[in-house]
Amino acid sequence: MTQGIVLFAHGSRDAQWAQPFEQLALSLSRRFSGPVELAFLDLMPPTLEQAIDALARRGARSIRVVPVFLGKGGHVGEDLPRLAAQAAGKHPTIRVELEPPIGEQPTVIEAIARAIAAGR
Amino acid sequence: MTQGIVLFAHGSRDAQWAQPFEQLALSLSRRFSGPVELAFLDLMPPTLEQAIDALARRGARSIRVVPVFLGKGGHVGEDLPRLAAQAAGKHPTIRVELEPPIGEQPTVIEAIARAIAAGR
Repeated sequence: MTQGIVLFAHGSRDAQWAQPFEQLALSLSRRFSGPVELAFLDLMPPTLEQAIDALARRGARSIRVVPVFLGKGGHVGEDLPRLAAQAAGKHPTIRVELEPPIGEQPTVIEAIARAIAAGR
Repeated sequence: MTQGIVLFAHGSRDAQWAQPFEQLALSLSRRFSGPVELAFLDLMPPTLEQAIDALARRGARSIRVVPVFLGKGGHVGEDLPRLAAQAAGKHPTIRVELEPPIGEQPTVIEAIARAIAAGR
């Protein structure tokens, strides 16, 4: 069964904002065999609904929604479940699962600490 | 010369938001010999100015301000330089240097991609 991943990030009016998330999607695509799509909460496309629609078209029957946020605040705790329920409602045969924000992964925090300690 | 680090993050009304940043400060303190302080852009204390004041009291003569943001948008590109200039103005003998957001570090992006790929 094809599994897809949505990387769900905050948006910005500044187009430069998207770069690390695009880099992440590329890096994940090299490590994960299923389809990967980026989505933004607001201010820049695509929306979560558009990303889930795209994964459905690409054959995903199970979708992991990964919040690319360091912490869990209102966007991950409230906005995301609401948006995901809306988007998932259009695809009743697809399983859509919300994961914790990536900042709750100890390996991510350790990598950030290492990168800062290695800096000037 | 004592070097200090401010970890500068977005804030949230949700207290749970601070956890990964506190974890990061702890992890960095194990790897970095100078004083480390957290600061938030808004919605939760301390401010950048309070963190820089605290590092000055702790003897820092040079301060790295590290934006714990994945991308560079208005908060890192506009708000942070303004807040840093204000705070640094109170400490003319201390060198305050702004670094790029941690999401621009390739090792951080790779660690996030690995953590996601290793997930379910």
